[in-house]
Amino acid sequence: MSAPRDNAETHSLSFDELAELLRQVFLRHGTSPEVAQVLSQNCASAQRDGSHSHGIFRIPGYLSSLASGWVSGTAEPKVEDVGAGFIRVDAAGGFAQPALMAAKELLIDKARSAGIAILAIRNSHHFAALWPDVEPFAEEGLVALSVVNSMTCVVPHGAQKPLFGTNPIAFAAPRAGGEPIVFDLATSAIANGDVQIAARAGRMLPAGMGVDRAGQPTEDPKAILDGGALLPFGGYKGSALSMMVELLAAALTGGNFSFEFDWSKHPGAQTPWTGQLLIVIDPNKGSGQSFAERSEELVRQMHGVGQERLPGDRRYVQRARSLVEGIEISKTEWLQLRELAGD
Amino acid sequence: MSAPRDNAETHSLSFDELAELLRQVFLRHGTSPEVAQVLSQNCASAQRDGSHSHGIFRIPGYLSSLASGWVSGTAEPKVEDVGAGFIRVDAAGGFAQPALMAAKELLIDKARSAGIAILAIRNSHHFAALWPDVEPFAEEGLVALSVVNSMTCVVPHGAQKPLFGTNPIAFAAPRAGGEPIVFDLATSAIANGDVQIAARAGRMLPAGMGVDRAGQPTEDPKAILDGGALLPFGGYKGSALSMMVELLAAALTGGNFSFEFDWSKHPGAQTPWTGQLLIVIDPNKGSGQSFAERSEELVRQMHGVGQERLPGDRRYVQRARSLVEGIEISKTEWLQLRELAGD
Repeated sequence: MSAPRDNAETHSLSFDELAELLRQVFLRHGTSPEVAQVLSQNCASAQRDGSHSHGIFRIPGYLSSLASGWVSGTAEPKVEDVGAGFIRVDAAGGFAQPALMAAKELLIDKARSAGIAILAIRNSHHFAALWPDVEPFAEEGLVALSVVNSMTCVVPHGAQKPLFGTNPIAFAAPRAGGEPIVFDLATSAIANGDVQIAARAGRMLPAGMGVDRAGQPTEDPKAILDGGALLPFGGYKGSALSMMVELLAAALTGGNFSFEFDWSKHPGAQTPWTGQLLIVIDPNKGSGQSFAERSEELVRQMHGVGQERLPGDRRYVQRARSLVEGIEISKTEWLQLRELAGD
Repeated sequence: MSAPRDNAETHSLSFDELAELLRQVFLRHGTSPEVAQVLSQNCASAQRDGSHSHGIFRIPGYLSSLASGWVSGTAEPKVEDVGAGFIRVDAAGGFAQPALMAAKELLIDKARSAGIAILAIRNSHHFAALWPDVEPFAEEGLVALSVVNSMTCVVPHGAQKPLFGTNPIAFAAPRAGGEPIVFDLATSAIANGDVQIAARAGRMLPAGMGVDRAGQPTEDPKAILDGGALLPFGGYKGSALSMMVELLAAALTGGNFSFEFDWSKHPGAQTPWTGQLLIVIDPNKGSGQSFAERSEELVRQMHGVGQERLPGDRRYVQRARSLVEGIEISKTEWLQLRELAGD
């Protein structure tokens, strides 16, 4: 499946139409109704918000992983309540998003009652953007932080070979005067999906993103994908954060580190089998003025010093546009999705 | 006070001797015995570990702030237990470290019982390194994360003027085979203390650290200090993390943002009057193998790919050396400290 707008002819769908089409695709490729529902909403949201590297671009990877038997499309997450602020979930070899969904209400209850709560998901596959996991908590007036580790493709600062995953960190906070403040950043200098998109589009990358198979710096996305590796963002600091993500998302949850799983017996597998951690805080337990008023004040000041675009703004603009104009995908993509859905 | 080794003649002290000397200095300059005890241990630890920008280099700043009446050296922190996992502390205009100390046992109890706990300190001054605040939790087998905002000196990515503080993030995790894994990183491209040290030493900085008063990139530390500003590390990602620190350390605690306090009526004031957040997690509530065994495995693998130095390693090496050889400071510094202590 190619990136949108490769084809001059496009097709426009509403969010519900795209989500329903994707739900049919997932259902037809071995997922339970619950899993199909969660993944289709997630994937359609990314496409709607212009997060193209995590939108329908990911469908072939999902389906190929499901077909390989590497990930379970029918896994039933097991939720364990282990403390006033601690929930564990065994995703049972399925996707991380249904595991989060299974524990979400309990997580919110615990955060509101204890003031903070943690959700430790293990034995899970995360193949999506991370912001959709945190944004809903901010819509409930809560502050959320999540980390997920992925698969070996990043060379730790000062090392010679890759070890860490792209290991993103996502954060969401409510805001009085507008959409929540949300960011989702890979601790690699670039996200894997963006390297793939650049490679398909024949574009070179900026310097400092990755190395080739010989460990030499390269700007060619194909050289990175062909046995090369990514670099952490921001030198030793990004590398330290990536290490922290391994510790929180894997060591703490009981999931695999990014370098621990072996999918060689499952040709076609693409989904990393690791863990995910979420921390949710009730800011109403803090002191002083309302948190959302305070975060609004910070936004006002950021605009005041000339930062025009806040983290998340591009997604909200694209989301609003999609609501009016529909979600535009190429006709080729549309026909492929319909075929996959068995239409 | 100049940086160590400016003077060929040095004086060597044991940790306890240095801490006691500093305790006398604080006591003689308006702090309570409790505050003197906490600050002297903190400052001596930084000096012992080679964190020179947060060691005795900071003493003049502490004393000048105390003398100005800007910070209270005798404040008694008020601890409020507001949830199974949430503690608030009003530092009452004093330093953040005694506020943390006042709540530390309760924080550990809550983390062990609920699985996770948060400490929200407001109305506090943090003038020290952040790693000493998290390392002790890892020594207790816990995972700790802390953020503190400081004072306007960092230009948000895409903005024209400074707004954020250097806003560090510190993390500590236990490890089976050695000292805890600990990092403490400013979300600015460089720490303020390091800019000051470079300026005093007449050294230029690497590119990308800061701008001059006209907002133009500069490598001259003096131009940064003279009306210029720092840049975030890692472009928009470091900037997003710095924004997160403002939200967690100030909006959530009820403390000031980095741009909110006005010390103009307190000439000599240097300590930022903001807030601090700590999150402590009990990894024993997680699933699978012992956390410390898993973090040890990660360290083994990091060494295996060629990362020789882990975050914190340099401090531990210097700490071990200080234990054997003593802590070496210049004779000038030693005489100045003795004079300040009234010896």
